[in-house]
Amino acid sequence: MVIAPGFTVGILGGGQLARMLALAAAQLGLRTHIFAPEAESPAFQVSSVYTIADYEDEDALSHFAAVVDVITYEFENVPVKTVSYLENLVPVRPGSKALRVAQDRLEEKRVAGELGLRTAAYGSVRSLIELNFCIDRIGLPAILKTNRMGYDGKGQAKIMNSADIGAAFLAMRGQPAILEGFINFDYEASVICARGVDGAFVAYDVTENDHRNHILHTSTVPSQMTALLAAQAVAAAKLLAEALDYVGVMGVEFFVGSDGLYINEIAPRVHNSGHWTQDACLVSQFEQHIRAVCGWPLGDTTRHSDVVMTNLLGAESADWQAIAARPNVALHLYGKVEARQGRKMGHFNRITSRQG
Amino acid sequence: MVIAPGFTVGILGGGQLARMLALAAAQLGLRTHIFAPEAESPAFQVSSVYTIADYEDEDALSHFAAVVDVITYEFENVPVKTVSYLENLVPVRPGSKALRVAQDRLEEKRVAGELGLRTAAYGSVRSLIELNFCIDRIGLPAILKTNRMGYDGKGQAKIMNSADIGAAFLAMRGQPAILEGFINFDYEASVICARGVDGAFVAYDVTENDHRNHILHTSTVPSQMTALLAAQAVAAAKLLAEALDYVGVMGVEFFVGSDGLYINEIAPRVHNSGHWTQDACLVSQFEQHIRAVCGWPLGDTTRHSDVVMTNLLGAESADWQAIAARPNVALHLYGKVEARQGRKMGHFNRITSRQG
Repeated sequence: MVIAPGFTVGILGGGQLARMLALAAAQLGLRTHIFAPEAESPAFQVSSVYTIADYEDEDALSHFAAVVDVITYEFENVPVKTVSYLENLVPVRPGSKALRVAQDRLEEKRVAGELGLRTAAYGSVRSLIELNFCIDRIGLPAILKTNRMGYDGKGQAKIMNSADIGAAFLAMRGQPAILEGFINFDYEASVICARGVDGAFVAYDVTENDHRNHILHTSTVPSQMTALLAAQAVAAAKLLAEALDYVGVMGVEFFVGSDGLYINEIAPRVHNSGHWTQDACLVSQFEQHIRAVCGWPLGDTTRHSDVVMTNLLGAESADWQAIAARPNVALHLYGKVEARQGRKMGHFNRITSRQG
Repeated sequence: MVIAPGFTVGILGGGQLARMLALAAAQLGLRTHIFAPEAESPAFQVSSVYTIADYEDEDALSHFAAVVDVITYEFENVPVKTVSYLENLVPVRPGSKALRVAQDRLEEKRVAGELGLRTAAYGSVRSLIELNFCIDRIGLPAILKTNRMGYDGKGQAKIMNSADIGAAFLAMRGQPAILEGFINFDYEASVICARGVDGAFVAYDVTENDHRNHILHTSTVPSQMTALLAAQAVAAAKLLAEALDYVGVMGVEFFVGSDGLYINEIAPRVHNSGHWTQDACLVSQFEQHIRAVCGWPLGDTTRHSDVVMTNLLGAESADWQAIAARPNVALHLYGKVEARQGRKMGHFNRITSRQG
């Protein structure tokens, strides 16, 4: 079913990703309806219709489903139960299958492994005994992560040597966890891709990502990746999208070492490392996602410029006036009132003539 | 006074220009409040706050002024009285002076003439006697236009020979009119420029415009204009902006003949012939206008691509799916429900690598 101009896209979540999705939908003549629990959601500012309610509020969800034509979500921590409930009422894209896998680091690695894609060595950790067992098998250093609900480095503990084991286990606060072996990588990269309702697949150029304190700092395109490796990365993203019956934009993060690619994480949504597409491509990842979930033809992913995206965290956004004055720079601010430390307040893209 | 991110821009008018202004403001982290008389205004869809009221409703205007930090408008047919009233309460940019001149074709030509800028020969027509007097002076063919409130060819009548005089006069329905001599031009062009609160001035590359049935059909950049003539066009736009104490984006239309430039019209607002900036520049005319009226540094007007903008009128927008599938094309739809004949429903920009 194609969602034509004039119809309404429902978006679960009201943060900056939902905001930029709503702006992209508006460019295409689509209406949006934002559903989020927080009264001060940035996305509410850019849509005439929004609902403030919990993701567990079935009355609110029923009403939401009744007044929209398709539903999508801005982040993977929407409860699977919410999406499953909505799926019975109206198309939800991407569907609950992709969400279920992306919420579960063990499941994510299992799916990648079944497709023959390489990940870090890993093991399930539900007890201290299991943790020690995994360390014997995988070796140290390693990293212990909660299996669910982690992002931007939250819920992670490094284990450099055996003295760190107890503290790392306690840091999981009793939640099911995953131990991942260290990968000796040269850099991090990601593929932002999209799959349509009809199975069509497109990908943007591979992005090289630099993190600071586990939070994305810059994305640079073109990356240093060879054309051969980049083709492998895109092929891996395509395999994953197909295995998940995926519809929409998906981000796949890679570690890149001298021995090639390792899948790090799958994001079933538009992704911070795809924000550069807003100013270096004609069709941004946000528009691409709206096109995909609405059953439109996917858009051109050609990059017209070289680009570096830089995130603005917390107080860094106070420099908006100086950044706005720079040549070749496009500034994006998210309308957040409080500039808490480490909070994503905006980003800017600096473009230059295409060289690579 | 600088309107910082988080503050609110009030916009008079709720059509596609207001809609695209609101989207641009959102990218900069600004809030918008739309004020328009029509309940189904396209701009309402992209802002959480709007007021439906007449431009003469002083209670509604007072309330509007009290909750916004700066006011701008999307079109020149907002009553001067409305802007004058609001100016006493909150900054309105551009101010009533620019609006007063742009609403009055005689005044517009007088201002251009005082600056030494060339226009068509013209004369004021308030009676049939005056019309005949003007024709004696200016000659035929000529074009009779209502002095105020005309756009897209509305309120205009061609006078090819003396047999047309009576009908043309009646077509003015008793409104004050202006007779303009025909200009033998090769093509039409426009300059989209911006002036800041501090007097800073920037201009985009000159645009070549093709009209059909008096409505803009395509804008092409680069234009066929020589660099020397383009510099003259930009200089003329700068003189006009300064003479009007202008703040914001302004469009200046030119006729271009073998003997050079003639000023056709001044639009005290973002302009249809500047829609190409959305996809061929980093800072669009909409963002530029928001920057200017908010006292921000003006943005970079560098064009990264060659571009042709094509308007979608009425039923032409039904082709949205085919247009969305074309490579190198960005589609913009305005969220209008009814595709009446000749109504501007959207536009698309086709970009190619920069050659000129």
